[in-house]
Amino acid sequence: MPNLRQIAEMLHADAEDFPEGGEIMGVASIEGALPSDAVFASDATALERATISAAGCILARLADAFLTEDPRVIPVKDPRFAFSVLAQKLSPAPQGHLHTTAVLGTNVSLGENVSIGAGTVIGDNVTIGDNTTIDARVVVYAGVEIGARVLIQSGAVVGSMGFGYACSASGEYIRFPQQGRLVIEDDVEIGANSTIDRGALEETRIGCGSKLDNLVHIGHNCILGKNVIIAAQTGISGSSVVEDGAILGGQVGIGEHATVGDHVILGGGAGVLSGKKLRGPNQIFWGRPAQPLKQYLRDLAKLRKL
Amino acid sequence: MPNLRQIAEMLHADAEDFPEGGEIMGVASIEGALPSDAVFASDATALERATISAAGCILARLADAFLTEDPRVIPVKDPRFAFSVLAQKLSPAPQGHLHTTAVLGTNVSLGENVSIGAGTVIGDNVTIGDNTTIDARVVVYAGVEIGARVLIQSGAVVGSMGFGYACSASGEYIRFPQQGRLVIEDDVEIGANSTIDRGALEETRIGCGSKLDNLVHIGHNCILGKNVIIAAQTGISGSSVVEDGAILGGQVGIGEHATVGDHVILGGGAGVLSGKKLRGPNQIFWGRPAQPLKQYLRDLAKLRKL
Amino acid sequence: MPNLRQIAEMLHADAEDFPEGGEIMGVASIEGALPSDAVFASDATALERATISAAGCILARLADAFLTEDPRVIPVKDPRFAFSVLAQKLSPAPQGHLHTTAVLGTNVSLGENVSIGAGTVIGDNVTIGDNTTIDARVVVYAGVEIGARVLIQSGAVVGSMGFGYACSASGEYIRFPQQGRLVIEDDVEIGANSTIDRGALEETRIGCGSKLDNLVHIGHNCILGKNVIIAAQTGISGSSVVEDGAILGGQVGIGEHATVGDHVILGGGAGVLSGKKLRGPNQIFWGRPAQPLKQYLRDLAKLRKL
Repeated sequence: MPNLRQIAEMLHADAEDFPEGGEIMGVASIEGALPSDAVFASDATALERATISAAGCILARLADAFLTEDPRVIPVKDPRFAFSVLAQKLSPAPQGHLHTTAVLGTNVSLGENVSIGAGTVIGDNVTIGDNTTIDARVVVYAGVEIGARVLIQSGAVVGSMGFGYACSASGEYIRFPQQGRLVIEDDVEIGANSTIDRGALEETRIGCGSKLDNLVHIGHNCILGKNVIIAAQTGISGSSVVEDGAILGGQVGIGEHATVGDHVILGGGAGVLSGKKLRGPNQIFWGRPAQPLKQYLRDLAKLRKL
Repeated sequence: MPNLRQIAEMLHADAEDFPEGGEIMGVASIEGALPSDAVFASDATALERATISAAGCILARLADAFLTEDPRVIPVKDPRFAFSVLAQKLSPAPQGHLHTTAVLGTNVSLGENVSIGAGTVIGDNVTIGDNTTIDARVVVYAGVEIGARVLIQSGAVVGSMGFGYACSASGEYIRFPQQGRLVIEDDVEIGANSTIDRGALEETRIGCGSKLDNLVHIGHNCILGKNVIIAAQTGISGSSVVEDGAILGGQVGIGEHATVGDHVILGGGAGVLSGKKLRGPNQIFWGRPAQPLKQYLRDLAKLRKL
Repeated sequence: MPNLRQIAEMLHADAEDFPEGGEIMGVASIEGALPSDAVFASDATALERATISAAGCILARLADAFLTEDPRVIPVKDPRFAFSVLAQKLSPAPQGHLHTTAVLGTNVSLGENVSIGAGTVIGDNVTIGDNTTIDARVVVYAGVEIGARVLIQSGAVVGSMGFGYACSASGEYIRFPQQGRLVIEDDVEIGANSTIDRGALEETRIGCGSKLDNLVHIGHNCILGKNVIIAAQTGISGSSVVEDGAILGGQVGIGEHATVGDHVILGGGAGVLSGKKLRGPNQIFWGRPAQPLKQYLRDLAKLRKL
């Protein structure tokens, strides 16, 4: 494991300014840190607390680092980010492991260092890229394509049939075919008990680097761009598009055939009507139905003043 | 597999008007169709695209079909419906299969052609009707009664204990008994990771032909009628009634002891207060608390105009 | 099993006033009761129905019990509560059982009479207290601490990694470490398919006696007090606090770093903004954003009157 000077080097600080220090084995909160832990200080107050902690390495903002001569302090641009990078570097590299109780269909293609947890069920003709981890009790339906460095947490179901029916004259529903693909691109992470439906005739796609929290629902034919963030219990109905870098709060609901533009931010609980297009970038929408944040706040204020 | 003429016959078109054509093996989107695929065209524009596709069979509206002499076009009343019917007819009949990793309790009664997926757990005294499919990693608690041609997708939990407690004078909660039945009638479909609680003392019932999307919650003692449609992440609290043919959008919330009348439509995200009765048929309600659509739109407009 | 007189004694009624009666084996609804069942009557009308039922024991309010000379009627302060207590006493004591298909990691510590259902996966270094029941197909991630008399229903996932990322200058997200603890205290009950994340660096804690319904989401670092009630599909974002005795309706959403004060009641679908503090005790909040019930109703009325 790296010592303080080696960490400074990793994080592109000037290594010669630092003592070697002891080995850093992991990361911790300031309060819980051992001498073998690195911590981060997001502001001057946190830095003060950190300097009286036992931590062996302290990541602090450039502006704050000047305030102390503590030799453990490494100045970085964004301490929380540097801390996350360091935590990842200190973690053991993924070691492929297929639990004996996992159930694999026929013709499954596994990349290198793939881990599949206990009780997980992988359907026929699934492909899984290198260094991907699928935790315990996940279901991957037949034919799903999963990229590299993907993480799927327990209880998630990917590739299920979507919710599409045709109604007879007498009011009975029969299933519209749900036979399309599901592609989960590289570096996607999917939370516990989330569900992602396969395409009906075409495909559902979760773009590179997108992160989904727990209990999220993605309907058939949805296309998510790159680096999309979706908080817990949000649901996206069929055939909607969420463009690159969009951020969706928790419990957001999006109707069918809607578009959430690139880098749009949707506040928690926002609702987007079917067919609606929200244009980005960097616009914030809130409420049900979702409207620009300013408008939402204005309406709320007007109601209060009545 | 049927040829074009045989499909025309199946769909009650006049078979003699059609060439035999090659075998149709499946259904596809217009863009992805092979000569062995059937497609559907929901309007004249789609029909135009379909006639330049490779599809071996094209289902189109009567009104549009006149526009082309393409021999592959079969005129039908509702192309999307006919396409769904055809897809079902072309699918292989269900072949009963009990996965070796499924866990069955004692005294479980299975109909003909029942399929039970990997890792699925079926409690004691469960009955399952003919041609029902239970996917991987489902839990069916003891005593649940499941009809014929039911589909339960992965991760669903049916027959769990409901959320009912009695509070002591000192503020501690003890469980009110949750020992009732759960009956899932014929032709019901239940999405991935949905949960349906058994009755407390009486029963919970999901009526014939009802379809539930993913992550739906149905509380104890709820009674759903026939052909009820419930989109993803909707939740129904205990002892509520949803009558025949009602359509509930996604993320709808319904309080306890409420009634949603027959053929009522609830927009996505609508909320129905405990004890409330929404009368149908064919009334549309929206918002929290739910109100008739016209009223909802009027309130929204008034707020904007202030 | 106890007879009528013994039940009167259990419930602190004056036993000598009652005939011995036959054995009472269980509880039931008034309509479904057999002579071996106890029922409860929450008002005079229910009591009337109960006295013409077959039930062998009837729990009724003191005020109502005077109305009848039926020897089966035991007067109690709160019939629904007494009925729940009786149901629990009549239930067989938990018998520890480890299903053969459960998967246990290394160094798992099980108390006495622990039951673990089929297909459940328990990670390394988990501790589980006495008389706890974990149903089928649950996942308990490594290191989670579970108290005594806890119930976790099927499909729940506890101890998953939370939703915390740091964003690079180029818009890619890397995971903030999610390595903290999850402590589930005594007498907690967790519904089907709910998810509870472990702490990021510190801990997530579910306080003694708290009850969570189905499809509930609890984010990392949340601290729930004692006897907190959370109905289905409610979600609590990271680092929020819910104090003792709070009651959260269904589909409530709570932002990050928010506080719900002790004995606060949040109506179904209410939304609490990040960082907000709702003060109790015994205050009722409703709406999105949540506001005191009176204010909520006033706003609603004003909108209607416009």
